Amino acid sequence: MKKIRAGIIGTGFIGPAHVEAVRRLGFVEMIALCEANEGLAKAKAEHLSIPKSYGSVEQFLADKEIEVVHNCTPNHLHFEISKKIIASGKHVISEKPLAMTTAESKQLVKLAAKSGVVNAIDFNYRYYPLVQEAKAMVEGGKLGDVFHANGSYTQDWLYLQTDWNWRLVPGLSGKSRAVADVGSHWCDCIQFISGLQIKRVLADLRTIHKTRMKPRKEVETYSGKMLAPSDYEPVKINTEDYANVIFEFSNGASGSFSVSQCFAGRKNRLFYELSGSKCSVVWDQERPNEMWIGYREKPNEVLIKDPSLLSPRARAYAHYPGGHPEAYPDGLKNFMLRVYLHIAGASKEIDFSTFQDGHNELAICEAVMASSQGSKWATVRY
Amino acid sequence: MKKIRAGIIGTGFIGPAHVEAVRRLGFVEMIALCEANEGLAKAKAEHLSIPKSYGSVEQFLADKEIEVVHNCTPNHLHFEISKKIIASGKHVISEKPLAMTTAESKQLVKLAAKSGVVNAIDFNYRYYPLVQEAKAMVEGGKLGDVFHANGSYTQDWLYLQTDWNWRLVPGLSGKSRAVADVGSHWCDCIQFISGLQIKRVLADLRTIHKTRMKPRKEVETYSGKMLAPSDYEPVKINTEDYANVIFEFSNGASGSFSVSQCFAGRKNRLFYELSGSKCSVVWDQERPNEMWIGYREKPNEVLIKDPSLLSPRARAYAHYPGGHPEAYPDGLKNFMLRVYLHIAGASKEIDFSTFQDGHNELAICEAVMASSQGSKWATVRY
Amino acid sequence: MKKIRAGIIGTGFIGPAHVEAVRRLGFVEMIALCEANEGLAKAKAEHLSIPKSYGSVEQFLADKEIEVVHNCTPNHLHFEISKKIIASGKHVISEKPLAMTTAESKQLVKLAAKSGVVNAIDFNYRYYPLVQEAKAMVEGGKLGDVFHANGSYTQDWLYLQTDWNWRLVPGLSGKSRAVADVGSHWCDCIQFISGLQIKRVLADLRTIHKTRMKPRKEVETYSGKMLAPSDYEPVKINTEDYANVIFEFSNGASGSFSVSQCFAGRKNRLFYELSGSKCSVVWDQERPNEMWIGYREKPNEVLIKDPSLLSPRARAYAHYPGGHPEAYPDGLKNFMLRVYLHIAGASKEIDFSTFQDGHNELAICEAVMASSQGSKWATVRY
Amino acid sequence: MKKIRAGIIGTGFIGPAHVEAVRRLGFVEMIALCEANEGLAKAKAEHLSIPKSYGSVEQFLADKEIEVVHNCTPNHLHFEISKKIIASGKHVISEKPLAMTTAESKQLVKLAAKSGVVNAIDFNYRYYPLVQEAKAMVEGGKLGDVFHANGSYTQDWLYLQTDWNWRLVPGLSGKSRAVADVGSHWCDCIQFISGLQIKRVLADLRTIHKTRMKPRKEVETYSGKMLAPSDYEPVKINTEDYANVIFEFSNGASGSFSVSQCFAGRKNRLFYELSGSKCSVVWDQERPNEMWIGYREKPNEVLIKDPSLLSPRARAYAHYPGGHPEAYPDGLKNFMLRVYLHIAGASKEIDFSTFQDGHNELAICEAVMASSQGSKWATVRY
Repeated sequence: MKKIRAGIIGTGFIGPAHVEAVRRLGFVEMIALCEANEGLAKAKAEHLSIPKSYGSVEQFLADKEIEVVHNCTPNHLHFEISKKIIASGKHVISEKPLAMTTAESKQLVKLAAKSGVVNAIDFNYRYYPLVQEAKAMVEGGKLGDVFHANGSYTQDWLYLQTDWNWRLVPGLSGKSRAVADVGSHWCDCIQFISGLQIKRVLADLRTIHKTRMKPRKEVETYSGKMLAPSDYEPVKINTEDYANVIFEFSNGASGSFSVSQCFAGRKNRLFYELSGSKCSVVWDQERPNEMWIGYREKPNEVLIKDPSLLSPRARAYAHYPGGHPEAYPDGLKNFMLRVYLHIAGASKEIDFSTFQDGHNELAICEAVMASSQGSKWATVRY
Repeated sequence: MKKIRAGIIGTGFIGPAHVEAVRRLGFVEMIALCEANEGLAKAKAEHLSIPKSYGSVEQFLADKEIEVVHNCTPNHLHFEISKKIIASGKHVISEKPLAMTTAESKQLVKLAAKSGVVNAIDFNYRYYPLVQEAKAMVEGGKLGDVFHANGSYTQDWLYLQTDWNWRLVPGLSGKSRAVADVGSHWCDCIQFISGLQIKRVLADLRTIHKTRMKPRKEVETYSGKMLAPSDYEPVKINTEDYANVIFEFSNGASGSFSVSQCFAGRKNRLFYELSGSKCSVVWDQERPNEMWIGYREKPNEVLIKDPSLLSPRARAYAHYPGGHPEAYPDGLKNFMLRVYLHIAGASKEIDFSTFQDGHNELAICEAVMASSQGSKWATVRY
Repeated sequence: MKKIRAGIIGTGFIGPAHVEAVRRLGFVEMIALCEANEGLAKAKAEHLSIPKSYGSVEQFLADKEIEVVHNCTPNHLHFEISKKIIASGKHVISEKPLAMTTAESKQLVKLAAKSGVVNAIDFNYRYYPLVQEAKAMVEGGKLGDVFHANGSYTQDWLYLQTDWNWRLVPGLSGKSRAVADVGSHWCDCIQFISGLQIKRVLADLRTIHKTRMKPRKEVETYSGKMLAPSDYEPVKINTEDYANVIFEFSNGASGSFSVSQCFAGRKNRLFYELSGSKCSVVWDQERPNEMWIGYREKPNEVLIKDPSLLSPRARAYAHYPGGHPEAYPDGLKNFMLRVYLHIAGASKEIDFSTFQDGHNELAICEAVMASSQGSKWATVRY
Repeated sequence: MKKIRAGIIGTGFIGPAHVEAVRRLGFVEMIALCEANEGLAKAKAEHLSIPKSYGSVEQFLADKEIEVVHNCTPNHLHFEISKKIIASGKHVISEKPLAMTTAESKQLVKLAAKSGVVNAIDFNYRYYPLVQEAKAMVEGGKLGDVFHANGSYTQDWLYLQTDWNWRLVPGLSGKSRAVADVGSHWCDCIQFISGLQIKRVLADLRTIHKTRMKPRKEVETYSGKMLAPSDYEPVKINTEDYANVIFEFSNGASGSFSVSQCFAGRKNRLFYELSGSKCSVVWDQERPNEMWIGYREKPNEVLIKDPSLLSPRARAYAHYPGGHPEAYPDGLKNFMLRVYLHIAGASKEIDFSTFQDGHNELAICEAVMASSQGSKWATVRY
């Protein structure tokens, strides 16, 4: 297969994960990196063994060799930078959220469509083999009608009052935090699997730490737990630490999920329970190689990620034999594989999450915030 | 200890469980049984090895030997029969719900208080050693401030359209089903453990099977799964199969739970997650001998029901050594033990669920129904 | 059913468990208790609400009202007392081990057979519903041919050098400890389920604490963990804390198990894995309400103890609906139920463990000890 | 970091896994591939996006650009090819087993030492963060003295009589199968963690399928489960499907493990339980992101792979935050990272498994076979 050349803008927590994931494919070269300034870019490029480095997005985008761009900047920059990438005619893989508002995200969807570039957004949890298997079960009629869906997404990296990260600043991360950061993954998964759309929501958002202690030095996502900052300043917090959301699907079924970034002991537990008229499926991202399948009239099952037991659809996402567990980095690799196979022309299908999905999640987020403020059902305006 | 003599009215699913539980205490004799008619009463008494049988509540209550009465009748009879028991001056242990409405339950609380009889209601899940341990942790400050609470209560015994039981008939069981039958247990547990009261609720109730097929013969609670009825008639169903409830505690924290009687593979899964400022606790009634305790800054724990590891409070509920698991029947035994020790004068404390708790759960149920109908927060009127 | 009257000799850890278990049956009255002396007998009888008490076995056995005797004395007394019970013509339910040697146990088997009394031995783990289900699977051909069996029985109640109990004294408990105390349960279970006999063994026994610190006051089984003795004397220990045993079944298949009373964190974990040509079954006594069933060509299953999902054989051992877990005390109740239904004439079958089973386990133990001493295979002499 | 150039010989199941793992490092280029003939080599190189391909080992080794060689050939070729690699002066990373006999492996250890090339062998399970954490616990004294060790390694990919693979042929794979293939991983892990050496063994090996049905076409390791071969020939099998091994450590403690390639439902379950005087640790490779830690006097723990909770040693093996599970491919990556950091001069330590470890495992295997044949303890001749 012809080698495809890619570049990346932004190298915080998720950037290096993108780099590693695309390298696994073998047919993609990560040739350039862009950071806030030249010095940082050079250092990061050296650290990540990437040949070229740029301190400006314009210069980076002017590099003709780069065919695909990974937008891994902080949230508030996603919109402007993705616009520029599209304008440059390069393919774009954006981190989520797609933008800060649906006004922006709608614009990006349109621009990408008009330009014809491949556009993708990193809803990485879809790409676990057993999430694909759940979707295959729904599509194949094995689940039956969807009765209801439940679950939660719980973490503890913002548990303490002294935990700090740029995601706590609305100007950088957006007006919603727990729901936008991780609730969006939950919604994307459940919609992807069920094939149903969330039509309206009834939500209650809460800020547990109404004041947080901000350390004076920078802290990267998820890495604050490793630090012991000696110097803080109090900062008022307006975004939610915790949320409960009831929702209604397009088929009339309902469900609920809760999201918390202050749940001690849960690290990154995306958990769903989907009840159908033939069986139910339950999955926990912290134990991603097993899916519980519940039955009324026979024993429940625990399906292990074993290619020989999976549907053809899911098998394409399982690269190692049963009992050789695959996990978070492999989901990301699967996402990149689907996108780059399409870019390479080896796959015609758009079997990956696109800017449209990114827009959809922002629409749900806005409805959740509106519902919580109004204490009533809010319709999602896609 | 002086032997106490007890009698029981009603012997469906839960009646025999009461009989077995009190027999384990050793100092209580189950001497009389009352059923809908003399023939049935005699047969049941023979089957359960109970010496006396009565076909009328009046005759049963006239039996001077009976000191304590277990009210295990269907829900719609609870109120009238408990009133009569109180009037007879005997102690009363009622199955839940306490009555059909808060109007009734409030009356029972008053009557019991006035009469001075011991009054108890069977919120049996409180009496698991590890539920007691969770309460001890909250009381001892080990959990810290309650941040939020979540969970679910899922079952599959009413999963199929052909599943039938008297609990599907509002006139016999009440206007709420899933929430009243099992959601009430969830609420009782979480309030008991946290020491907090649910102040208001935001709920959405759903009926999955809007028509059910009723078999022509009687089916007892939980036993329908064993039958293969050959003859049905369609019946409209108005009570909820499934519900999502968001709530607010008296300390301002919030939470949510979902209840389903149509979740394939879950048999009777009362599950809660309680997040505190020092740690969190998670418990699943289907694996009752272990409690997960989550921490941010050290490894999570799994506490086994081992008397040597429990607080003094919980140790009183663990009668066998660690690794000798105790389960559902033992929780019921613990409930009976607390009540009968009090009746016997061996314990001064009222360390068991009383009519007041039964009333409280009905108040929550009514608020849940009001909220779902009005699509807005409803305050619980205790 | 006619009431049956029972008495009990010995009331340490397991005696009260017997009393509680038979009381649950409803048709058995525990009318008499015998202890080492009259004072202790009286106090224990009062505590356990048993009407009659005896300070001598002879007087106790002379009581004509007693029809069945539970022999719950320390191990070294089992033989002599069971002999006397048989001689008295009463039915006998012995705690395990049946005796101290196979010479003794063989004699008891013969005496019991000759006298015609009902004889039973408490291998209680057989009586869990899911152990019965495993047996039903083997009998019904669902497991196929037995390929091999593995497992362990691990505890921590003798983990510390300061843990003390009469079971550490060979004169009171026997020459083998870990293997005899709990390994025997493992062997009984695996033979019961598989229907195969252990023909020869290859074993290695180890004493971890070659000296232990003995407290000056008495400590009951499993309760040492609750104490903090202030005064000890060092005692040499000859019995094994830990053992590895390889064995061969009567069908030529092999297996192994390890036993440890010094495994921190395992409380009483009887665990087996049975591999068959059609599927495999795995069960952990610390989570007794679920059985894992492994398949090569379809998803694995987790069968919950739910009467509607069990075979007819196992269903008789499950008294509560699915999701209403039953546990250790219920297994003991099931044992008593099978024995007493037989004594009452309500069941013709001898579907419970008898003195023959007790003898068999002693024969295995002796072979294990012989093998370890000789460092070679030892044939079990049944 | 200077780019290092690597090549690979052999591209069956594990070869592509090596390629992917080294690509993740960023500073290693996989530039050449060698296969049995030029045609196959070219096709595989194309498929794996590797620029150069060779049909002969000699030509491949003559390529001056290649600095490091991965020996991923079938077992019977390991020895000769590794000898040639060493002779060529290139660094060598061998798949296990190091050779077919200890005579060969001893020679390789010497040759590698003499030549001074970096030599490594792929005992990949060592490189899971939580296996490293267990080692750190032992080294840091947190486990205390090792009391005993147990476990198993169970699979089902050779469960059926129709399962076929070259590993069933002693001439290609060696005289031992289950023990050599996967038992060696178990032994390597337990020795690595405990810091103890296995001194002698007492073993019993069994062949369940004494005849197997061989398909006429080639089947790659682990992939036979995906095929439905239509044509077979019966072949006698001499290597073990199943084994039980008791062993003694250098500190006098003992242990046991069983290995089975015929255990339905277990896919690749490397499982160990290590009992120490302060706590015990239990780990299951099929759920690699959690380690159970057992205590006698406090609740057990479940440590999640979370860098903020790990020791410095283990933290270096965890590249993603807590709750972002890493798994099999990441262990392999960690192995490659340690080896290549050393090759690159960025790490002075030999913190990876070397030819000496490969030799040690062969020595254990030979002792296991000798013990089984002689039915007695066999000393390991390292």
